[in-house]
Amino acid sequence: MSIAETSLRLPIPPLPRGFRMGGVHAGLKRNPTREDITLIVSDLPATAAGVYTTNLVFAAPVAFDRDRTPGVGFRGIAINSGNANACTGTRGLDDARSMAQAAAEKLGVTESAMLVLSTGIIGEFLPLEKIKHGFDLVASTLESTERAIVKAARGMLTTDTRPKLSGSTFTAAATTYTLFGMAKGAAMVGPRMATMLGVILTDAALTPADAQRLLGEATECTFNCVSVDGHTSTNDTVLLLANGAANAAPLSGETLAAFGTALLSACESLAREIADDGEGATHVLRIEVSGCPTRDAARQIARTIADSPLVKTAIAGADPNWGRIVSAAGYSGVQFDPSRLVLRLNGTLLFEHGAPVPFDGSAVSELIKAARETLIEVEMGFGKQSIRFYSSDLTAEYVRLNADYHT
Amino acid sequence: MSIAETSLRLPIPPLPRGFRMGGVHAGLKRNPTREDITLIVSDLPATAAGVYTTNLVFAAPVAFDRDRTPGVGFRGIAINSGNANACTGTRGLDDARSMAQAAAEKLGVTESAMLVLSTGIIGEFLPLEKIKHGFDLVASTLESTERAIVKAARGMLTTDTRPKLSGSTFTAAATTYTLFGMAKGAAMVGPRMATMLGVILTDAALTPADAQRLLGEATECTFNCVSVDGHTSTNDTVLLLANGAANAAPLSGETLAAFGTALLSACESLAREIADDGEGATHVLRIEVSGCPTRDAARQIARTIADSPLVKTAIAGADPNWGRIVSAAGYSGVQFDPSRLVLRLNGTLLFEHGAPVPFDGSAVSELIKAARETLIEVEMGFGKQSIRFYSSDLTAEYVRLNADYHT
Repeated sequence: MSIAETSLRLPIPPLPRGFRMGGVHAGLKRNPTREDITLIVSDLPATAAGVYTTNLVFAAPVAFDRDRTPGVGFRGIAINSGNANACTGTRGLDDARSMAQAAAEKLGVTESAMLVLSTGIIGEFLPLEKIKHGFDLVASTLESTERAIVKAARGMLTTDTRPKLSGSTFTAAATTYTLFGMAKGAAMVGPRMATMLGVILTDAALTPADAQRLLGEATECTFNCVSVDGHTSTNDTVLLLANGAANAAPLSGETLAAFGTALLSACESLAREIADDGEGATHVLRIEVSGCPTRDAARQIARTIADSPLVKTAIAGADPNWGRIVSAAGYSGVQFDPSRLVLRLNGTLLFEHGAPVPFDGSAVSELIKAARETLIEVEMGFGKQSIRFYSSDLTAEYVRLNADYHT
Repeated sequence: MSIAETSLRLPIPPLPRGFRMGGVHAGLKRNPTREDITLIVSDLPATAAGVYTTNLVFAAPVAFDRDRTPGVGFRGIAINSGNANACTGTRGLDDARSMAQAAAEKLGVTESAMLVLSTGIIGEFLPLEKIKHGFDLVASTLESTERAIVKAARGMLTTDTRPKLSGSTFTAAATTYTLFGMAKGAAMVGPRMATMLGVILTDAALTPADAQRLLGEATECTFNCVSVDGHTSTNDTVLLLANGAANAAPLSGETLAAFGTALLSACESLAREIADDGEGATHVLRIEVSGCPTRDAARQIARTIADSPLVKTAIAGADPNWGRIVSAAGYSGVQFDPSRLVLRLNGTLLFEHGAPVPFDGSAVSELIKAARETLIEVEMGFGKQSIRFYSSDLTAEYVRLNADYHT
């Protein structure tokens, strides 16, 4: 896929004011047409917030960024794909710092103004010479053009088939603010943290506390509600940079709330894209669990359905095998009364009162085949809390990709 | 696969005294060469114990058997495959009782002396006429011959490629006791209960309390330590029948302990067979987690590794991708210090001190390819408890089987 083709297929959201970016190929990936280095610069010092993996085995860039967010005065994010810098011990931490230092030098800023992201193979040391060479190449290409955005977005991908972008604007007190997001997913995507890599940029100004709180809230019901294979990555990170280029006064009150809504929308869109582009996926599963006493209970049920290989293969086979969905809820660990459970698949009632409901299996199967998205609605009947969870189906292509990835 | 071929490929353990069994095809499965009805009879009243799924959505036969075990006076087990009688509401419970009644009539015993097992598709009502016809056919074939054993073992299978049998004898106080086990697995095999269907028969005599305690203990470290796809079934059941045909005096003291050891060995063998014959499996994974403060912590780590699609596909691809194993431990929910974790794959050291260890990737890959069993040893370094867990790899064949099973 060339950049031109990518550009044509995607609506490219504009960058917020005061941000530029670019992406190049520097030899971390074998295919010379695939970017593997991305650099993002903010012309103004930005507030930064971050949400990170909860995996105890976390990568060096996670340790590096977590130490310095939330905070102020950030000028850029340096990203590489092809190597995760995970399980690399103290040398990995030194390498993350060297990577930040090299990018800072090219941007003419201090190392302390940088954040870093890495994704790719676990357990190999960063090829620092290639990465530094990549920064040499990319530094002269930093722009706010569509071409630059696509190349930057591609530079953070691994087995993703396409960049994941989202954007929105909102106007408050006569100022129009822009919000931009990009992400990578594909595999080793499990819940229980901010899954995957994500970068959100805005020209609004935010205090570090507000930035962190809003990013955490948005993550909780978007990136923490997506799963491709249930395997929580070592590198999952979502960063938010707010540089105030639209208005230097930090948002507050209703304006802050409007920003929170726009942020939630951007994260939701990216989370759905990650499930949609899960490795080998032919369907994105939207799982709506309602009628629970708590959101955590709803999430636990949704996650168990989302991660069941039997549910995921059933959807891949366009099979309305509702027994797999109901029984997954049953082993989720949440206590409930199965006789109250009501299940609908793409709007068709399949199960209620603890027993099957007659339905036209061929018609339901045809509906699954006809749409990219499969809607699974589970009403539990013992509370008022609900959750939306995204997952992908499980195909032989996922197996092929992951049996052959390393060797 | 004909019975003759099956017989030739398997060592068929002998039945304990006082048990007979048989299996026939009664039309629940489409293929007329595949048995779908099994009947087991004990000529003497037997003590029975049972361990059942912890899934809240449990099948009618689970409810039926759970009500009457542990107990005494049991004369038989009636089994069908092809239909799980799960998610079938109150009619399902009536059907389970009708099934027990029909089998009891053929055996000339009371319905209260019967236990039932069902496995197969969820959410369809039992075809009772076919099942009753099956009991008519099978009742005249009940024997203790190898042919009868194989046909009975096949009658409880679904997508399993072969029967799973185990047997042993032990001698105490001049009496030789025999223990026989048979099981089915293949898919919807997850931990957190007695996974799958299993039947253990012995001619020893046991009190109901001892039978239940020993079956529970054996299950905890065998059937509860096996996973094919992490999906806890609605029908998982292990039944133990002890008829005292070898010696009517209930076992006690050292003899009881010897029986417990034999029972554990039989369950371990069947559990390993279930993982080995997981749907589409090309490798059985033996996961040994040690150095934990509790067995539950060790089990949780082992289960997370066992259920990771990324670990399972890596082994299918003969890929020593240790980052996937270490990161799975990291999101298991157990708190530990990653720098103490030591990982070996088929005996080769891959990871310690929080960093990769140089190793010959090609050689390790060749070792994975060369053996049916892959040994994953994880030493956590913060306690003395350990566990052994069995799983299977994840192949495209698993996806094909489960995308196409229903429709």
